[in-house]
Amino acid sequence: MAVIGAGTVGGGVVDILVDLMTGRRGELASRTGGVAMELKVVCDVRDEALAPIAEKGIETTKDAEAVLARDDIDVVVELIGGTTVAKDLVLAALHAGKSVVTANKALLAHAGPEIVTAAIGGGAALGFEASVCGGVPLLGAVRNGLVANDITSVVGIVNGTCNYILTHMTREGKPYGEMLAEAQAAGYAEADPTFDVEGIDSAHKLAVLATLAFRAPVDFDSIPCEGIVGMDVMDIRNASGMGYVVKLLAIGKKRENGLELRVHPTLLPAGHPLAVVSDVFNAVEVTGHAVGEVMFYGRGAGRMPTASAVVADLVEVARGTAESATRELAFWAEGEPLEVAPAGESRSRFYVRFSVREEYGVLGQIARVLGEHRVSIASVIQKEPDRSEDIPIVMLTHEARHGDFRAALGEIDELGFMLQRSVFLRVEG
Amino acid sequence: MAVIGAGTVGGGVVDILVDLMTGRRGELASRTGGVAMELKVVCDVRDEALAPIAEKGIETTKDAEAVLARDDIDVVVELIGGTTVAKDLVLAALHAGKSVVTANKALLAHAGPEIVTAAIGGGAALGFEASVCGGVPLLGAVRNGLVANDITSVVGIVNGTCNYILTHMTREGKPYGEMLAEAQAAGYAEADPTFDVEGIDSAHKLAVLATLAFRAPVDFDSIPCEGIVGMDVMDIRNASGMGYVVKLLAIGKKRENGLELRVHPTLLPAGHPLAVVSDVFNAVEVTGHAVGEVMFYGRGAGRMPTASAVVADLVEVARGTAESATRELAFWAEGEPLEVAPAGESRSRFYVRFSVREEYGVLGQIARVLGEHRVSIASVIQKEPDRSEDIPIVMLTHEARHGDFRAALGEIDELGFMLQRSVFLRVEG
Repeated sequence: MAVIGAGTVGGGVVDILVDLMTGRRGELASRTGGVAMELKVVCDVRDEALAPIAEKGIETTKDAEAVLARDDIDVVVELIGGTTVAKDLVLAALHAGKSVVTANKALLAHAGPEIVTAAIGGGAALGFEASVCGGVPLLGAVRNGLVANDITSVVGIVNGTCNYILTHMTREGKPYGEMLAEAQAAGYAEADPTFDVEGIDSAHKLAVLATLAFRAPVDFDSIPCEGIVGMDVMDIRNASGMGYVVKLLAIGKKRENGLELRVHPTLLPAGHPLAVVSDVFNAVEVTGHAVGEVMFYGRGAGRMPTASAVVADLVEVARGTAESATRELAFWAEGEPLEVAPAGESRSRFYVRFSVREEYGVLGQIARVLGEHRVSIASVIQKEPDRSEDIPIVMLTHEARHGDFRAALGEIDELGFMLQRSVFLRVEG
Repeated sequence: MAVIGAGTVGGGVVDILVDLMTGRRGELASRTGGVAMELKVVCDVRDEALAPIAEKGIETTKDAEAVLARDDIDVVVELIGGTTVAKDLVLAALHAGKSVVTANKALLAHAGPEIVTAAIGGGAALGFEASVCGGVPLLGAVRNGLVANDITSVVGIVNGTCNYILTHMTREGKPYGEMLAEAQAAGYAEADPTFDVEGIDSAHKLAVLATLAFRAPVDFDSIPCEGIVGMDVMDIRNASGMGYVVKLLAIGKKRENGLELRVHPTLLPAGHPLAVVSDVFNAVEVTGHAVGEVMFYGRGAGRMPTASAVVADLVEVARGTAESATRELAFWAEGEPLEVAPAGESRSRFYVRFSVREEYGVLGQIARVLGEHRVSIASVIQKEPDRSEDIPIVMLTHEARHGDFRAALGEIDELGFMLQRSVFLRVEG
């Protein structure tokens, strides 16, 4: 076995393997049906990443190609991330019949079919439990424990960075920028947080999860994706006052008119199981026709939780059960993507905030336009203006067609009393 | 494949298999690596249980022995429950090399080593995902997804009947007996609810779960078990006023001085992930050295959720991966039970209610005795008496040794002002 990429997670993988192999935390052999698992070499281009590994007496190298050429390496752990070098390495390993374990959701979201094809073709195993929700054994549950189910929806919080920022915006009432800086200082957000805060990471994970849940390849580019950048803390406060919590959700639902996939900040009732998921924790609710709702909760990122999932995949490879599991992914390689439901057809309740100038009949005009577009109002809060001229009118609607709702907003935003574009969020649960 | 026991869950298993086999909910073959799964016969002694099965065109019989003798049956699903007939059937099937899938936690808790030995000896597979938390794929997660972890604790709500009763006692403020009757009327409690409400069912499940989590056989009789019978709604109300929720928890913890296993009603802070688990839902929090806390949530009982887990096990058998998974249970058959920590040594916070006669210096005397036993008080509520003479003094303690706390209560209960024995509950989280 070789680990390529000795960063945070790679270091964690080495730690767990050393602990298990030396029997400090139970005998690894007893967990792999007696098959020995041996970490032979760790590869990275950075000296500082390799130094602590070498100190443990493990062989290190900077030459990934040489690692792939070795006959005594039958499993490669890819932890370098990204979709370029990582893709070449993963495909080369699989084509050579070496099994691959990876945490790389971006790679799987963009090139899943190609990679699964290479794995099946090479007679190799592909493990990727760590790619979605880190240590939470969610993908295995979908593939095995829930296999008897026709899964109708997957809904979850799959990005710890965004959940941390939203949790602290909610608790402390402070703006997005300040909480992002705090998350960065605490090590919960990258220096360049784009992938996380724009929802792209969540969409990557949704693509992988939905592919497994609905047993058909999902086209990553078909996922409308909205992150938390520019989220106004005022909307979180308003939601809170109405008994709701704002979470960045990844949503996949099998509808009669096709698959509905989306990532966006969402209002959840405070009593919803996902609403209490705080800080960097992840949780995903899966609904199956037989089992009903099942929820999985835990740490979706970080050194040891992610390493926990990587090592679980390695154990599955050692047990000899991972190859047949990989062959069962043929639907990912060869299946037709499920039809995507037209975005405008999706239905939900909506939260909306209108910033208006104080003027006679404003509320009535807004209500009229909404009504003309078949959007019905469930509740309204309009506060008395304080210092500013800007009066926020906050509404929750009943369930409406997304297309109708957007058309109504488009019309309202043109009205003379509107001080800025209306802000809306979907409501789930 | 044969199903023995065509009750609620058996009927659900047949429903799912028929749906999957006929392609109504996805092709079953694609989920089993191309291996056909065929339900050949369903066995029950009750005509009324067999009639709806026969209507689906499936062979039925009353003769279980004849089923076991058939060469064309290689998998037996045992769903009759109990530890007598079921045990004989399961052992006979395994000895004959037939794989067994069961939901029978009582059987596994009492005879796990014998059954695992028979399975390994017969070269057969043993599937029992449905035995703990019904449809929630918890055991598979512990055996596979979390295999890289040294698991240090399992804590959960594993009995839906008790959780339903406690939830409604909390919400409606009504006494235990009334809520039990309501649960029975709603079909969430058996006519004879003993196993559920006395915590025995929870202890069965804890024995199975702890065996897998700690990778050593657990002696069922070593689990101190307290149910919810006679739970006073006043304590639920008091807890609620202090920001706590009362749940029946099954607790397994690996301590330095041995394994701590117990089942009892417990106070959880209202913000704890397990505190929001309501009605018949189950949830279990597993803590591993690498992954940290992971939680699994869903329906722990009922026709379709339990059937979902049974069919998942059947798919695993068809895939051919269940036999090797069974061999990895050798620790259950051959391992030494972990040492059980002395009950008095366990530590936790406590809730306690003293019913006292109004008298000078009562609180001081109670505090003195507690202090003498190294129990320190975290908070006290003493309300003014209303009509009755009986004044409840309610306390939360700081963490204390169980033995010390019990000794203090024993002494306090002897004091002259005590109107009845003190009532206490543990606090977790």
